[in-house]
Amino acid sequence: MSKKLRIGLFGYGVVGHGLYDVLHKTKGLNTEIVRIAVKHREKKRDLPAEIFTFDKNEILNDDSLDVVVELIDNADEAFDIVSTALKKGKAVVSANKKMIAEHLQELYDLQQLHNVPFLYEASACGSIPIIRNLEEYYDNDLLDSLEGICNGTTNYILTKTSEENLSYEEALKQAQQLGFAESNPTLDVKGFDAKYKLTILTLHTFGLIIKPENIFNFGIQNLSVADSTYAREKGFKIKLIAHTYRTDDKVVSYVIPKFIKPHDLFYDVRNEFNAVQLGAAFSDKQFFLGKGAGSYPTGSAVLSDIAALSYNYRYEYKKVKQNGAVPFSNDHDLNLYIRYSSENILDELKVHDISQRFISNNTKYVIGKVKLSNLIKVKLNDHIDVFVAKID
Amino acid sequence: MSKKLRIGLFGYGVVGHGLYDVLHKTKGLNTEIVRIAVKHREKKRDLPAEIFTFDKNEILNDDSLDVVVELIDNADEAFDIVSTALKKGKAVVSANKKMIAEHLQELYDLQQLHNVPFLYEASACGSIPIIRNLEEYYDNDLLDSLEGICNGTTNYILTKTSEENLSYEEALKQAQQLGFAESNPTLDVKGFDAKYKLTILTLHTFGLIIKPENIFNFGIQNLSVADSTYAREKGFKIKLIAHTYRTDDKVVSYVIPKFIKPHDLFYDVRNEFNAVQLGAAFSDKQFFLGKGAGSYPTGSAVLSDIAALSYNYRYEYKKVKQNGAVPFSNDHDLNLYIRYSSENILDELKVHDISQRFISNNTKYVIGKVKLSNLIKVKLNDHIDVFVAKID
Repeated sequence: MSKKLRIGLFGYGVVGHGLYDVLHKTKGLNTEIVRIAVKHREKKRDLPAEIFTFDKNEILNDDSLDVVVELIDNADEAFDIVSTALKKGKAVVSANKKMIAEHLQELYDLQQLHNVPFLYEASACGSIPIIRNLEEYYDNDLLDSLEGICNGTTNYILTKTSEENLSYEEALKQAQQLGFAESNPTLDVKGFDAKYKLTILTLHTFGLIIKPENIFNFGIQNLSVADSTYAREKGFKIKLIAHTYRTDDKVVSYVIPKFIKPHDLFYDVRNEFNAVQLGAAFSDKQFFLGKGAGSYPTGSAVLSDIAALSYNYRYEYKKVKQNGAVPFSNDHDLNLYIRYSSENILDELKVHDISQRFISNNTKYVIGKVKLSNLIKVKLNDHIDVFVAKID
Repeated sequence: MSKKLRIGLFGYGVVGHGLYDVLHKTKGLNTEIVRIAVKHREKKRDLPAEIFTFDKNEILNDDSLDVVVELIDNADEAFDIVSTALKKGKAVVSANKKMIAEHLQELYDLQQLHNVPFLYEASACGSIPIIRNLEEYYDNDLLDSLEGICNGTTNYILTKTSEENLSYEEALKQAQQLGFAESNPTLDVKGFDAKYKLTILTLHTFGLIIKPENIFNFGIQNLSVADSTYAREKGFKIKLIAHTYRTDDKVVSYVIPKFIKPHDLFYDVRNEFNAVQLGAAFSDKQFFLGKGAGSYPTGSAVLSDIAALSYNYRYEYKKVKQNGAVPFSNDHDLNLYIRYSSENILDELKVHDISQRFISNNTKYVIGKVKLSNLIKVKLNDHIDVFVAKID
């Protein structure tokens, strides 16, 4: 039977607000948001003042609250709140992918040590219930890959550059005006946000905890009209893909733009939508699509975690025990399109098996193979005149 | 903790065989298929003879077996086995959509009465974990619609008529040669298979138990070259769609061919794949895609149910209690393309609000509105010279 949950909420921004709305419109969930901790004293809010507190300890030290829902921006503060709550035996729900990815081992250990549930469905791919499906449904099938469009901001931008021939800069500006991109879009456009999600998903796919800094990520910030034109001429679309897969002897994970062919299911994932495709030995290809961001989709994912807590649900992390033997490795070649201006970068990347080479007055690119460890070494995101994309 | 399950299996066809393979290749599942009941004594089988029995009671009366997995074709025999097993307190897993849909109320009651779990994920949309997601993840969000391509056979045929300009007859023949269609394809091509699945999914979406005979279904058996040409000229694809949705005061469910526009997620669901799209108040549009049939995808879904049983999982049917107040109704208009030869059918269907009318030497069609109750009344599947498809 479902038990009554008393919730302390941290953060009352768009997602917190969405959650409050969703909770009040949902019948049958025996749950109350009792206290909300917020930062800014002066902000006007649409709930009675007495529900708010400006002191996190008023929630963390309140033994009458069973559940902490953490929905604040700052990753360091969030970790402080979440780890304290877990130590005090409270169940925790969070949507903070950066915080979770960077502290995955500690958060895993805290759950085991204090025997408390920590759920974070909203941290990976918005409204798609991918963590729950990986935990519950694909716990016995032999997964061999997870590939996803996990960042709505970049997918919105890429939809506009592809379908409306906008430049990257124009598309980014439009995304910012519509609220799909932040004023400082670095975490999204350089692929960090997608990488945090991939870090979390790699744990639930293969049972491996990897530090985010060991996973290669490259974004779309250098996308040029030449790159978009190349894609269009070949009939491809460019998508920012997070990918983890298992070979015979290793697990490989990375975030990179990729040329997508027609009939590929990712081809028609448009605007702010996210999608995930699983490859499994028995159930074959599985594809999930849903909205990647926004207050309601995220609030709904958080709500679903809260509902699960009322039935004593927790992640079992079965794969950590089952599959821990296959190690993560960056000793792995990707076949890449590399558009560059100075030849130096090709040497630094140790590009090999070059199959195509194009040089014109304006544009130079090669298609060839590069080791993931070399991509990490050259800090590709810091270069402004290089664009790489995976090509099959 | 997971408990050891001793399974009695009914049926050792492609799915049963697939399940046996999958179980033996999966680590970490503490489960054994102890006995297999089969029908034909003379058939050669690849397991030791002593595991097989030809008497169903050797499984049903064996108190050492906790779980019955039912994977036989005959729906009446299947119901006999499943209901007996439930009455004896055994957990049951089945993939038999016809049997489940036709006995939904009885099977629901048996679960409540004997307090035993009955899981049937493989009965709806093959490898897509749709029932589990509806039960677990969308139990608190306010669902307003479920739409799906739930039959791999018809989707394969429709892919061929659309992409390779085959006639319906040619495509059906090819599907039969490849094993995607049975020699008697009636249940698939006339939309009965999709309707059984829709009956099951309507229960898990809206908490309503409806008799299959009260749900309208029309298939693709009358699809003509003229219909395919119409779709192609408009840029549409034809898909067989199972649809249930809630208006303010009723729930509507039906199976019908539908013209699908580009950018619609169903547009690129090809060959034997299935897909389901959920519409929800908070999480918005959710789309799932996976293989619809075959021994491994189905075996994998059955396996996942078995794994869930080992953790004492059962369907809660929360929505039966929550949403039972909104009744099912066929008093609802659909906007349809109706290609016909005799005007009589238009009168019988009471077509109204006709917006287009086309007459040539070979082909006649109208576009107009028809009540679902009238579609049921005229027994549309029995006519050989009419094709209807939903058009938005």
